[in-house]
Amino acid sequence: MEEELRALLRDLDALKQSADPTAIDRMRERVAGMVSPAAAAAAAVGAARSKIKDMSAEVVDSNPYSRLMALQRMGIVDNYERIRDYSVAIVGIGGVGSVAAEMLTRCGIGRLLLYDYDTVELANMNRLFFRPDQVGMTKTDAAVQTLSGINPDVVLESYSLNITTVKGFETFLGSLKAKSAHGCNTGVDLVLSCVDNYEARMVVNQACNELGQTWMESGVSEDAVSGHIQLLVPGETACFACAPPLVVASGVDERTLKREGVCAASLPTTMGVVAGLLIQNALKYLLKFGQVSPYLGYNSLKDYFPTMEMKPNPQCSNPACVQRQKEYMQSKPARDAAAKAKMEAEASAADECPVHVDNEWNISVLDDSDTATSSILSTAADSLPEGLVRELPTADSYQEPIAPVTSGAIDDDLEELQRQLDALNSS
Amino acid sequence: MEEELRALLRDLDALKQSADPTAIDRMRERVAGMVSPAAAAAAAVGAARSKIKDMSAEVVDSNPYSRLMALQRMGIVDNYERIRDYSVAIVGIGGVGSVAAEMLTRCGIGRLLLYDYDTVELANMNRLFFRPDQVGMTKTDAAVQTLSGINPDVVLESYSLNITTVKGFETFLGSLKAKSAHGCNTGVDLVLSCVDNYEARMVVNQACNELGQTWMESGVSEDAVSGHIQLLVPGETACFACAPPLVVASGVDERTLKREGVCAASLPTTMGVVAGLLIQNALKYLLKFGQVSPYLGYNSLKDYFPTMEMKPNPQCSNPACVQRQKEYMQSKPARDAAAKAKMEAEASAADECPVHVDNEWNISVLDDSDTATSSILSTAADSLPEGLVRELPTADSYQEPIAPVTSGAIDDDLEELQRQLDALNSS
Repeated sequence: MEEELRALLRDLDALKQSADPTAIDRMRERVAGMVSPAAAAAAAVGAARSKIKDMSAEVVDSNPYSRLMALQRMGIVDNYERIRDYSVAIVGIGGVGSVAAEMLTRCGIGRLLLYDYDTVELANMNRLFFRPDQVGMTKTDAAVQTLSGINPDVVLESYSLNITTVKGFETFLGSLKAKSAHGCNTGVDLVLSCVDNYEARMVVNQACNELGQTWMESGVSEDAVSGHIQLLVPGETACFACAPPLVVASGVDERTLKREGVCAASLPTTMGVVAGLLIQNALKYLLKFGQVSPYLGYNSLKDYFPTMEMKPNPQCSNPACVQRQKEYMQSKPARDAAAKAKMEAEASAADECPVHVDNEWNISVLDDSDTATSSILSTAADSLPEGLVRELPTADSYQEPIAPVTSGAIDDDLEELQRQLDALNSS
Repeated sequence: MEEELRALLRDLDALKQSADPTAIDRMRERVAGMVSPAAAAAAAVGAARSKIKDMSAEVVDSNPYSRLMALQRMGIVDNYERIRDYSVAIVGIGGVGSVAAEMLTRCGIGRLLLYDYDTVELANMNRLFFRPDQVGMTKTDAAVQTLSGINPDVVLESYSLNITTVKGFETFLGSLKAKSAHGCNTGVDLVLSCVDNYEARMVVNQACNELGQTWMESGVSEDAVSGHIQLLVPGETACFACAPPLVVASGVDERTLKREGVCAASLPTTMGVVAGLLIQNALKYLLKFGQVSPYLGYNSLKDYFPTMEMKPNPQCSNPACVQRQKEYMQSKPARDAAAKAKMEAEASAADECPVHVDNEWNISVLDDSDTATSSILSTAADSLPEGLVRELPTADSYQEPIAPVTSGAIDDDLEELQRQLDALNSS
């Protein structure tokens, strides 16, 4: 663009000399070319790629989906391309939400709905995603700018609004129920909460309880060194109001309270890890692979990752949650029957299946009842494909070490245990 | 820019009507503004920010370091600004290395050395960081382009070379030892390996063993759903050759082998999590907070995070590793004496300290011997600051539930244990 503008300068100089009306027309045409939608997009993100109709599994450098379709060939996901049928809403496009949006965009999600009312600030630059040149833009506009450049196949809907206002909540609820632009599905398949305050979480909770919408919660601590993700299925798991925090803001704006003197710390690492765990859980949920975690914590100081499950609270303060709990209980007989039918179908299918099916790598799965298993396996492993050598001697050349435990030590332990038992019995 | 160009169009239309020479001058000025160096940079990366001399802790939207300096105020890090004195080398700017580089850049690391010989392809777009408009650029050039726009305070050195060639290895080793451009330190403080093959890992291992350089290893599985990070301190922990994989490529190019028919899968989630865990560990190591993990695995299908420690192998095939092990053993008396002196100094300092020091939040740390602790604590907790209310009743209104254990059950357990002990004694 710079070269074109310089040419324009030269022509303006010439124009001043001649004042030729046709020169003005030519300049007009060129400036119009610079502002046409395609040219504007190219100037913003360089040579962005064009849309792709079908996800190809072809292993070529020019295929942006080859490494994702490989998940299918490797047996991780049954049908990766199904991801294009899904719509995901992300509430809060900050340190976690923006990275979550980028991950889903690069994975080729069908439709992404983005909600935020904030603008990009230089103070956000210690987290991934936003760039200094986007300072002043709304976070949703900046996100759409970046994401559409990365993957034009994703349908992006941006909502620059505050969901905690009455009007904002109405729009939020309406957009979650609305038919998607390309009309292939109604509503969204998953809502991801990436907000940074209690009030907004309670609003997402309210909307999802009302709609019976499965969602995932995420959060990062104010000291920036821990975080968590949580799956919430209305009626089936605890909702966000089932186990509220012990202390909450009341009567004052929570954001004012939080910013009073103390500024919350944040790190791109913790937020990147939480976004990664969140979207991994979302992919497992949508594409049905692995185990979807009901709750996963991240304590970065000790690299400790606690997990837990939370049942809904029958005395929950949220009426919509209590209603969903009732419905879930009432549908139990139908669920049990469906589960039983599925198990029986799988059992009869297993009866008909061989222990292993032929595959292109000649890998054999052996029956447990086959006593010759270990010798067959070691023979098979001895003949490595061409180009591979063993770095260490084979297992055969090692002897099982004899455990250095004397019987005296065992006796001492038993006597000590006996003494403890006697003491317990006599007390 | 688009808005300015549209305004220019309107003025060109007006100009055609009036042909006023001063109108031409005004337009000229505006176009010149758009092409001036600052404006050209703004067009390329928008309004990139200027360099900042000192890291300020001031809580204003325009301070890119406010949320990082808050780590100090929150007691997580002693001196955050020390990060500007550190140099980190990242080998491999792919799915993990590029995100790791972005995280360190946003954290304000002093100097970053980037090594890769590959170019950006559309097939890389399913991972974070690179953009479609960077296709064809070397990964190091594309990384410098993006990173310098994000944080101009970081000194970036880019090496587009293959470290597994003789010449590449020499340059690699030389650059790790060289004085930094701004002369404030010699060599690097940490090497991060983010490569995707065994051969390159062995080369990083060789360089770090030769230099006695602490480094961290990272890796993601070919099926994209697990990964790991590992800390390697030459002589002190296992090196990469101490416990080699059971099967490695030999005589053929590992990359040819890997790509034969099968294309490795990858996900932005797994790679983002591994990059986050890696840089979190690097920050803990450099800024001395939390516990640095010797090894941390990530199994995303089950959200399982195994940890372990590996001692060096005295029979390691790498001579430099064996040499570092010898030096580490020889320096043991000196290390023990230093540790003892430090412990004594801390113990005497603790003797002089009060149980708690005054702080601005009026938080009191009470002595364990104080029997009135619980009543004092509950009184203090009863008076919440203005604007906060309790969401649940206080602890006082709950009764401790009585454990539903009958003495009969205990006796049964004891008898069963007794029987097991008797059986063990008689055998």
